[in-house]
Amino acid sequence: MNLRKDPTTGRWVVFLPAAPSRPSEEGPCPFCEGNESLTPPEIVAWSDAVRAPNQRGWSVRVVPNAEPLLRIEHPLERRAEGIYDSASGTGAHEIVIETPEHLASLAALPARSVTRVLGAWAQRIADLKRDHRIRAIFVFKNQGAAAGAGLPGHAHSQVIGLPVTPKALKEVLQGAQRHFQVHERCVFCDIVEQELERSVRIVAVTERFIAIAPYASRHPFETWVLPRRHDPDFESMDAAELSDLAAVIVRLLGRLERTLSEPAYNLFLYTGPNRSADPRRWKTLAEDFHWHIQILPRLGREGGFELGSGFYANTVTPEQAAAALRVDL
Amino acid sequence: MNLRKDPTTGRWVVFLPAAPSRPSEEGPCPFCEGNESLTPPEIVAWSDAVRAPNQRGWSVRVVPNAEPLLRIEHPLERRAEGIYDSASGTGAHEIVIETPEHLASLAALPARSVTRVLGAWAQRIADLKRDHRIRAIFVFKNQGAAAGAGLPGHAHSQVIGLPVTPKALKEVLQGAQRHFQVHERCVFCDIVEQELERSVRIVAVTERFIAIAPYASRHPFETWVLPRRHDPDFESMDAAELSDLAAVIVRLLGRLERTLSEPAYNLFLYTGPNRSADPRRWKTLAEDFHWHIQILPRLGREGGFELGSGFYANTVTPEQAAAALRVDL
Repeated sequence: MNLRKDPTTGRWVVFLPAAPSRPSEEGPCPFCEGNESLTPPEIVAWSDAVRAPNQRGWSVRVVPNAEPLLRIEHPLERRAEGIYDSASGTGAHEIVIETPEHLASLAALPARSVTRVLGAWAQRIADLKRDHRIRAIFVFKNQGAAAGAGLPGHAHSQVIGLPVTPKALKEVLQGAQRHFQVHERCVFCDIVEQELERSVRIVAVTERFIAIAPYASRHPFETWVLPRRHDPDFESMDAAELSDLAAVIVRLLGRLERTLSEPAYNLFLYTGPNRSADPRRWKTLAEDFHWHIQILPRLGREGGFELGSGFYANTVTPEQAAAALRVDL
Repeated sequence: MNLRKDPTTGRWVVFLPAAPSRPSEEGPCPFCEGNESLTPPEIVAWSDAVRAPNQRGWSVRVVPNAEPLLRIEHPLERRAEGIYDSASGTGAHEIVIETPEHLASLAALPARSVTRVLGAWAQRIADLKRDHRIRAIFVFKNQGAAAGAGLPGHAHSQVIGLPVTPKALKEVLQGAQRHFQVHERCVFCDIVEQELERSVRIVAVTERFIAIAPYASRHPFETWVLPRRHDPDFESMDAAELSDLAAVIVRLLGRLERTLSEPAYNLFLYTGPNRSADPRRWKTLAEDFHWHIQILPRLGREGGFELGSGFYANTVTPEQAAAALRVDL
């Protein structure tokens, strides 16, 4: 596997020797309790009692992806191919198995289990940031086939540690930097404040978090969850914050599933890149970036207009979406 | 309809009062010859003989989209909503009906008809650039349902004139600008030269054009067509160039359809923005940008990783794709 950079846009592409195999619907689910031997040996797991690795008794379990996009054991090499740039496929690709039971949705779990899932994301981000070859960590969920999820239909998320800053994260980081240069304020703090004041786009609000239908939602029912406290790094949350966020996420996903009849969706976590890997580039990050989660229901399919122009058309305003999704917490 | 800008990324979204209606499979095709009264009155049409507007006898016909994303009659207004930016839905949304017959694919047409289609794109771009409210013109095709095409299955392309520069075009323009600042050469001229030298990623080459599988192809069989002569503007092509390009496009799409069994694909034209609308911003454009066409087969569906990170995974190298698609011209 190797990485290549498009010289016109800065977009990176990883080339894999073969397509990841899609597990069939038959056969045991490798993510279920009791089938621990069907995954690569676990990286870390959480359990209520003392337990040997790769045995039953866990509540959240993190394993390497059996067919990873990137491999941590590859040494990092960057080189030129004429005018082009390439790099080795160095990085991490992990699966967070969110529940020992064969449940399809994170929203079906008790808030306490979701707190552990979020804690697992935080632990993996913090751990991967110790590797200076890794520039950014991207955590995401694909729920439903239309959102790119494969089998098994067992709730899980993915953590990818990348040796380059992916384009979409870089855009958000640079956008936030530009806003700070002009206003000397964090753009996400500005969003939180304006949405709290206006309230028409609020989906949920707690002491510590706010969920909104963003002002320029790309798709119907797009939802963002932001901490009200400015912080660039997801992994710096304390236990009370993790548990408060879990309550918001469970209620929000449950509401989304009921309102839209179990839609496919993607969930993305945008958290600060690894500053120790690239300290010069992101030296203003602590002030100008603010971690947040984006949830994007996949109700339609992007056509050529969206894909090629990056301009979106939406028929549901965020004000309508917020009214339909609003939950009290 | 109104436009809203995401303050974190600069992405624009147009909000429509209702989803465009999808014509049913029953009923006459509004794009077929003889059904001219089923579309809004035509903007322009090409024919071999003298002909009254909105009558039979045309070979390529351009009509306003009956359910447009933007409307030319809206006065352009930009305003702030607190920290956010909005604009009126001013612009153009036109349909280029590529053939009077009910054929599904541009590749089924004779090269002479395709020359007229490309000429229609050029004429519409030049005409829309006379309107100083329009900053950029985006031309694209959606072929097949998986690429976002609706009914009728009658070959057509779309021309959208936008009052803002869409994000994906801006990325390419800025990427080309950055390359020029460093190297004092056009990045696309560099690509053309390197691909001609190496030849492993060439899909087709003529005196005037080159088609390549780009070095960092996002998806299997992605193909770009570039003029070998540096030019920022598609619409400045002469008749010989249009006809040469048509030959490349017809052969390439035909080969793509045979090799991949009629895949869904998107085709995008990236041409220089309207410099008269925004002269300060793109004053170096003539030197640093180079128009080109991208053809993106839609064999899979973007999951959360691609959508959220802007980082792609591909299992077919461009060298393999070029070997499979290569055509002699």
